[in-house]
Amino acid sequence: MEEKELEKLIGSFMILPGVGYKTAQRYAYRILDLDKEKVEDFAKTVVSAKEKIRFCSRCGGFSEGELCNICLSRHSKIICVVEEPKDIASIEKVKNFDCLYHVLNGCISPLAGKGPDDIRLKELLMRVNQEDISEVVVATNPSVEGEATAMYISKILKPLNIKVTRLAQGLSLGSDIDYADEVTLSKAIEARREI
Amino acid sequence: MEEKELEKLIGSFMILPGVGYKTAQRYAYRILDLDKEKVEDFAKTVVSAKEKIRFCSRCGGFSEGELCNICLSRHSKIICVVEEPKDIASIEKVKNFDCLYHVLNGCISPLAGKGPDDIRLKELLMRVNQEDISEVVVATNPSVEGEATAMYISKILKPLNIKVTRLAQGLSLGSDIDYADEVTLSKAIEARREI
Repeated sequence: MEEKELEKLIGSFMILPGVGYKTAQRYAYRILDLDKEKVEDFAKTVVSAKEKIRFCSRCGGFSEGELCNICLSRHSKIICVVEEPKDIASIEKVKNFDCLYHVLNGCISPLAGKGPDDIRLKELLMRVNQEDISEVVVATNPSVEGEATAMYISKILKPLNIKVTRLAQGLSLGSDIDYADEVTLSKAIEARREI
Repeated sequence: MEEKELEKLIGSFMILPGVGYKTAQRYAYRILDLDKEKVEDFAKTVVSAKEKIRFCSRCGGFSEGELCNICLSRHSKIICVVEEPKDIASIEKVKNFDCLYHVLNGCISPLAGKGPDDIRLKELLMRVNQEDISEVVVATNPSVEGEATAMYISKILKPLNIKVTRLAQGLSLGSDIDYADEVTLSKAIEARREI
């Protein structure tokens, strides 16, 4: 019995991650509550962002031009390798760590049919050869696939005399040993440090 | 250091209720992941819904035309009075209760400077006089203001020989007596029924 346009509006919000019917309904009611201008601005912003944001031809991160702001303005001998463009934003939040980035667009995952040629490894190798790079920090996810990808990167870069590092694994700050899973604990014990 | 358009896109999602920076960021990344056509469809649906959905001239609920689907197609002697257009959807979910609706657009709230003339009470009175109505079910929220509004409606409709009822208050199904607040419990005791 609901109006058709309202149902369409609710349905349209369900393309967003984690948004079910109930949340979509709340969003739809907010849209109907807002001024027409604000709604039009919102729609315009979404379409224009989708049109303008593409990928940096060097690092593969989000960019409005040929090269992203980081590639254009930052000078560093460190490349941080991440799986997805959005991972860059997370690492950027860490202050005092100035690095360039390289997005793989996934990781090596035989189960998903993704081999070394399906991610941006050739591009990484090319950059390491051409740019003045001293260290590659592999910041792939701490999953089996991320781990395998890190090992692979280390294997192909070692012959070039490049220092390859991996983000440390262990207990999260503020977490509870009680709730830590066995694998994390075992990694934390393995990598224990003298104090 | 993030791209400007990306920041604008993230900011634009924060007009939605309960959406902070982190959630807006997730939504923005989903938009960048989707096909261009899907994003354009999404934007079009939002704008077109905002343009087409207005309020039913009779009941005040959401409508695409002069009258909403419920007012056009349903015949009932019962009017259910609600505070907001969106409340209609909640009551519609209850099967076996066929009623017409009347949206007040708020409720009497002296603290917010809202008196009886600021909500659609005149319109309700007019409908009760003109249409063939036998019962008015007041489904305002179980708050102090909703309660006051219900009492007021009862007062103005009683002289017209209209049955005025209010949704029952008591324990929610599946809830725990342990966690029920005192007011709810007191209402539930007050309205206890013989079994």
